[in-house]
Amino acid sequence: MKLHPVDLKKIHINDPFWSKHVSLVKEAVIPYQWDAINDRIKDAEPSHSLMNFKIAAGLCEGEFYGAVFQDTDVAKWLEAVGFALAAQPDGELERTADQVIDIIAKAQCPDGYLNTYFTIREPEKRWSDLCEGHELYTAGHMMEAAVAYYMGTGKRKFLDVVLRFADLICDTFGFEDGKIHGYPGHQEVELGLIKLYQVTGESRYLEQAKYFIDARGVGENYFLKELNRPGFRYIFPEFKDYEPIYSQSHLPVREQKTAEGHAVRAMYMYSAMADLAEACGDDSLMEACRTLWDNMTQKRMYITGSIGSSGILERFTTDYDLPNDCNYSESCASIGMAMFGQRMGNITREAKYYDVVERALYNTVLAGIALDGKSFFYVNPLEVWPDNCLPRTSKEHVKPIRQKWFGVSCCPPNIARTLASMGQYIYGVDGESIYVNLFISNETTVDMGGREVSMTMETRFPWKMEVDITLRGVPESGMKLAVRIPDYAGNFAVRYVGDGGQADGYGPALVREKGYGIISLTGDVCLHVTWDAPARFVHSNPLVRADSGKVALVRGPIVYCLEEADNGSNLAAVYVDPGTPVTEEEKDLFGGIIGLSFAGKKISGREWGGDELYGLHPVTWEDVKLKAVPYACWNNRGVGEMVVWMKELFKM
Amino acid sequence: MKLHPVDLKKIHINDPFWSKHVSLVKEAVIPYQWDAINDRIKDAEPSHSLMNFKIAAGLCEGEFYGAVFQDTDVAKWLEAVGFALAAQPDGELERTADQVIDIIAKAQCPDGYLNTYFTIREPEKRWSDLCEGHELYTAGHMMEAAVAYYMGTGKRKFLDVVLRFADLICDTFGFEDGKIHGYPGHQEVELGLIKLYQVTGESRYLEQAKYFIDARGVGENYFLKELNRPGFRYIFPEFKDYEPIYSQSHLPVREQKTAEGHAVRAMYMYSAMADLAEACGDDSLMEACRTLWDNMTQKRMYITGSIGSSGILERFTTDYDLPNDCNYSESCASIGMAMFGQRMGNITREAKYYDVVERALYNTVLAGIALDGKSFFYVNPLEVWPDNCLPRTSKEHVKPIRQKWFGVSCCPPNIARTLASMGQYIYGVDGESIYVNLFISNETTVDMGGREVSMTMETRFPWKMEVDITLRGVPESGMKLAVRIPDYAGNFAVRYVGDGGQADGYGPALVREKGYGIISLTGDVCLHVTWDAPARFVHSNPLVRADSGKVALVRGPIVYCLEEADNGSNLAAVYVDPGTPVTEEEKDLFGGIIGLSFAGKKISGREWGGDELYGLHPVTWEDVKLKAVPYACWNNRGVGEMVVWMKELFKM
Repeated sequence: MKLHPVDLKKIHINDPFWSKHVSLVKEAVIPYQWDAINDRIKDAEPSHSLMNFKIAAGLCEGEFYGAVFQDTDVAKWLEAVGFALAAQPDGELERTADQVIDIIAKAQCPDGYLNTYFTIREPEKRWSDLCEGHELYTAGHMMEAAVAYYMGTGKRKFLDVVLRFADLICDTFGFEDGKIHGYPGHQEVELGLIKLYQVTGESRYLEQAKYFIDARGVGENYFLKELNRPGFRYIFPEFKDYEPIYSQSHLPVREQKTAEGHAVRAMYMYSAMADLAEACGDDSLMEACRTLWDNMTQKRMYITGSIGSSGILERFTTDYDLPNDCNYSESCASIGMAMFGQRMGNITREAKYYDVVERALYNTVLAGIALDGKSFFYVNPLEVWPDNCLPRTSKEHVKPIRQKWFGVSCCPPNIARTLASMGQYIYGVDGESIYVNLFISNETTVDMGGREVSMTMETRFPWKMEVDITLRGVPESGMKLAVRIPDYAGNFAVRYVGDGGQADGYGPALVREKGYGIISLTGDVCLHVTWDAPARFVHSNPLVRADSGKVALVRGPIVYCLEEADNGSNLAAVYVDPGTPVTEEEKDLFGGIIGLSFAGKKISGREWGGDELYGLHPVTWEDVKLKAVPYACWNNRGVGEMVVWMKELFKM
Repeated sequence: MKLHPVDLKKIHINDPFWSKHVSLVKEAVIPYQWDAINDRIKDAEPSHSLMNFKIAAGLCEGEFYGAVFQDTDVAKWLEAVGFALAAQPDGELERTADQVIDIIAKAQCPDGYLNTYFTIREPEKRWSDLCEGHELYTAGHMMEAAVAYYMGTGKRKFLDVVLRFADLICDTFGFEDGKIHGYPGHQEVELGLIKLYQVTGESRYLEQAKYFIDARGVGENYFLKELNRPGFRYIFPEFKDYEPIYSQSHLPVREQKTAEGHAVRAMYMYSAMADLAEACGDDSLMEACRTLWDNMTQKRMYITGSIGSSGILERFTTDYDLPNDCNYSESCASIGMAMFGQRMGNITREAKYYDVVERALYNTVLAGIALDGKSFFYVNPLEVWPDNCLPRTSKEHVKPIRQKWFGVSCCPPNIARTLASMGQYIYGVDGESIYVNLFISNETTVDMGGREVSMTMETRFPWKMEVDITLRGVPESGMKLAVRIPDYAGNFAVRYVGDGGQADGYGPALVREKGYGIISLTGDVCLHVTWDAPARFVHSNPLVRADSGKVALVRGPIVYCLEEADNGSNLAAVYVDPGTPVTEEEKDLFGGIIGLSFAGKKISGREWGGDELYGLHPVTWEDVKLKAVPYACWNNRGVGEMVVWMKELFKM
């Protein structure tokens, strides 16, 4: 039996690190996104997404504007609202959302179809471009949003709208004669359908998700057939030489051994595969998930928990190809990886999955949003040289500063819904055990065989590697508490504290299993969990040529970087001896961090004449004091250089 | 007065290094290109270019096929043929070319217009898309080809065809009312018009070239006006957000201070600017040429003499931005840079220009063509990791092996015409002086104040830094011989040899001026010129972040590289101490080279578990013997890794 998250309505996060980010969602991001979908952000590309729904609903006159998947701006806002309302009721926000849902309901076609692009602009083209039309992708986001809103408010209206749409999809696609034998170019509907199954118990939605996964990449590629139809018109001209690997449709999913193609599509598909493998007891599908996870995390993932080595097409490339300055490393892809990891961790109870979830959340996902919650990175390279972030060059996707709101605005709302639903990543529960996956201060209650166990976690993680856990109402029949032992932890220890009836300072019996420390409990306890994770310089596998001869500085899950604001320019000329002592110091910067400082050397330009490009001058050095800050915090002090991997000074 | 090249009909190249490449043009490249423009190359994209002319001439039925500038395939073939016939008459080749010229003449419109794309497909769109329609670009190549053919054969038919076209262009474009006030999106017609002026003496062609240069970038951008016209249809959809800087039309040319935009366009424009500056005595234009040259060669040029740091749009980026693995570094751009450098050198008599010409010709231009003359590189990065040369990624422009013939086939014929006209780069003459710019064995005769001076040069350069120069028929009134002192030369010396009437072994009086060693002669001489240029490791300016902490190995003008064939894989893990001795050894490889070998170290993967991507393992080393080969020769032994800039092992 797999673990499942706790009910978001029953968990209250009160964490010194995360609460400021989580509260940003309600205080800044949701209002900002509301302005964005209403086209009220000055100097930003208009979204027009809510207007599209009003036009499709017959409430306004006008033309569709935006990308084919523009509807998802509204869906992701509603999803974030759903999660936020689960955490904390808010009558005014709920009324606003209800009004949006009324519009959406009116925009639905009589047969259940829901998509403003095709409804307004090309009604006759419905389902004719599964490759890039994004109808099923958009449908999936509508479903996820409706489920979140239903879970957060208990209101069914939006859910009923998407169920009618889901029924239409079930009637339209399948292996049966008379149905379309296609599958989505951008996976997502699978996740939506699975969530509909989870809230309604209706197995047809699970079956439909399974169809989309099972049909994918089998036999003649559906997209190539589609693109070759006479009169086919490309929405995106760059897809003229379509390669099925881009959408993970090059092989049946069970035969895929390497993480390929567009990274977000891959993550959404793998997440659905994991859900289906568990729900259907499908061992071959589970095996494929394990293989793909291992390939991705062992050969194609950045140390910041990001993926997508190619700026063009936002895609995976090859094993160990991890360039640091021209990669995509999309925020959404890291969110997708966290979703996949959460599922794998909950199914397998192996801690290695949450090691990666934590890495993605604390580094790349957080880097995606500014400290004020009002500007965003899509692309998260590990080195940025602002001068070269030029449009119409190989680095045109790299932005030297977070952007207000993108034309294709997947990342900001995706980050918002992730922050708003952080609670789902903290625990995995199954009625007999509580798995602690992430170290985030919170209070919650968990049903443990019919009995409500209340649990609190208090920590200053990731700055202090200490966590206090209190359990009250532990059943006498016993339960298990499993605490993840992070892959970077040394001297992991659990001790009793005070009044739990146990002797203060002694440790309970701890069984280590798949990366968790498991404790059997028969009564209430207060536990003090500690481990060591000092700042240290790490290497990459020597086959990663971009990092060859370099080191990165990490402390616990936090990857650090050098910024120009602290260290001057030309950071590529900085060298560090990984044996050098690193000083840790609490700082008020960025709302409170531990800053790291250490000595380094830098190639000096002193001996070099200004006008010579190549020459025989010897290298001269200067000693430098270096200061590193968490990668997630970079670029909150204006435009400047940034580098994660520093050159290593070897002592030969 | 500027220097000019010797007549190609009067120079015979018999050089151990170059003759094998030059003879390839006649023996392999011209026949191969003939097959190509006739669509007889198996497995290569068809050119269809000759067929387009036959269709336009009414000799065949059919549709236009290919790029808008497909005509230039034929033009460049004819230009190479013209140069080849100048070097060595060949009746059969000339008859074939004459037949092609007959077809071209028939394809010309009654008013002189000549362009098969617009004639066949869109006759009403003539001159409506100067931005990307490439009509003036194509016209320029026709003009250059016709001049080369006229110079090589004395036949006027093709020349007369392009003169009629040039007259139409002169009547169509200009500042005057009633004329189109535009200029070409891809510069080239300027060079063609200047050559027409040089062979005919007709100043209207010079004036017309000057118009195109003077009008460029002045006032409201012509291309933006054009693109904003109602109904404008993009030939290349990627130009929707057109930036004038791409075509160097962002500013009046005299106000341009940095090398910008598409590198080939820039080079053709700068070359025309240099010609015009000299022909018109235009000091402000000359100053702009100097400024642009200095910016390019001091801040934006690779050590291999290549340019164009961005793979996307084949363009310049910013100062010191010289990434080695995703750059464009097009062969054609290096050819263009050699053209620009030749003009600047001939005008200024400063050797620094030919230092760059030499660097470009010996490295990037030669790298563009395989040793068998049958496959070609467009793109010439300084590091290639074959696994990652994937289509639809950020490295899609990088090919791991030379290609047969490209759809857009500018480079192969451009390389061919350059090799076929190598003679023009060797000397600069003005009736009083002979400037020796490149060290290539040859025999020639030069008019020196009405007297024919015969000159021979014998050398095994670039392998031996020794050149024997013999001059016969030196006028008693005196003349000057100027020998370029390469920027990499040490101990440059000139000595008399034997029978010239001077004492054997003594050196003549040598005046060093602007990088040339100048000798005044009043009688025949045999001179032995020597200098030192041992293999050595060079650094780049510390502001070049891609090369920071790295060294490149050069010997004379030749840049070396490490290939996987000699050194195994994972060349990014190789380190070298630039103080290490380098052994030079003559090798039969690649038709005879000097190979370099030296000791290095390599990061070993021994301590690293196969499955870990990031970790705390210390770096371990292995000693390696490294072998370097000339960059121009790389990739003649199958697919494999290659790297020019090697990591430097510092002794701290």
